Amino acid sequence: MTQKSTDVVWQDREITRRCREQVLGQRGCVVWFTGLSGSGKSTIAARLEHRLNRSGRAVYYLDGDNLRHGLCSDLHFAPADRRENIRRVGEVALLFAEAGVITLAAFISPYREDRERIRERAGKGRFFEVHVSTPVSVCEARDVKGLYARARAGEIPNFTGISAPYEAPENAELTLDTTDLSLDECVDRVANFLLERIRPEPVP
Amino acid sequence: MTQKSTDVVWQDREITRRCREQVLGQRGCVVWFTGLSGSGKSTIAARLEHRLNRSGRAVYYLDGDNLRHGLCSDLHFAPADRRENIRRVGEVALLFAEAGVITLAAFISPYREDRERIRERAGKGRFFEVHVSTPVSVCEARDVKGLYARARAGEIPNFTGISAPYEAPENAELTLDTTDLSLDECVDRVANFLLERIRPEPVP
Repeated sequence: MTQKSTDVVWQDREITRRCREQVLGQRGCVVWFTGLSGSGKSTIAARLEHRLNRSGRAVYYLDGDNLRHGLCSDLHFAPADRRENIRRVGEVALLFAEAGVITLAAFISPYREDRERIRERAGKGRFFEVHVSTPVSVCEARDVKGLYARARAGEIPNFTGISAPYEAPENAELTLDTTDLSLDECVDRVANFLLERIRPEPVP
Repeated sequence: MTQKSTDVVWQDREITRRCREQVLGQRGCVVWFTGLSGSGKSTIAARLEHRLNRSGRAVYYLDGDNLRHGLCSDLHFAPADRRENIRRVGEVALLFAEAGVITLAAFISPYREDRERIRERAGKGRFFEVHVSTPVSVCEARDVKGLYARARAGEIPNFTGISAPYEAPENAELTLDTTDLSLDECVDRVANFLLERIRPEPVP
């Protein structure tokens, strides 16, 4: 083992994404949902995870709350912390895609630059941006978690859409406005979009 | 969608580890290789990944160098940074196990407390510690990367086994000393150990 360990490591490194995708029968990718608080992105992602799981896909929804208690438990909510949060989530999503998993992430992720960096690192055909474009007026009218009321009252600083900017995607693969679309329609659109794109590459 | 979004989220959260394990036909877990630099842990993990992949398992080897360029690119090699590195790797490994994947991690991870925290968070039967116990004299004699020579020359401070402590596991699931065991024997032992433990739970 001693003498050959370098060779062995090199050889074993040949286990790459393609080998993993063969086992799973699919292509790994990142589906990144971005949009305002209350736009519906988490709901769509969770339902999509359900749909893909039931159809036998290896799918994982990276839950922001979960990550805040684990990987990102050292981060707060200042702008720099929020960007670091997105950076780490992006890196984890890339690892999952590398493992062959259809990886769903739903984060406000207001900065274009942060999202583009993940897209670039993912490589072509591995990152799909879904802009849940529900307007702020609709999100605020829903205010499911009461956050908009608190933001208006000045209790939450740097609230995206109210007191902090949201940079909408310029080239999102999909745009969904939940003002008019039902949850099922949204999930259908993403699932249909993915259908051809998660086919595994043929073995050469 | 607006009125029912809370219900919907709750319902979709029922997609849990068990649903994912059904798809993959296996139980997710973390196999954590710990030991000195040059002990053989990365080589064993890489070969094990190969073996499990070829037998159709969803397996992913978390590569320390890879993570240092991505998720942990903001960290250096001071003791606090190294512990944060292990913390993050552990959290990522837990996410992969949650996704149903057999997750391999090979890190010196010299502190017992750091490893135990990951074990506790993983839950019973989800974390398997493999102590690659090759003695420092053997590791140093191999010195594949020339690191021991540099550590002895004082060029690398806090080098585990030379100028920094290594806290050996007290209750490792497996202990492998590569002084006497071949690479194949090591991989066999871990693979045999895992065989029964990665069977998916029966559907209730």
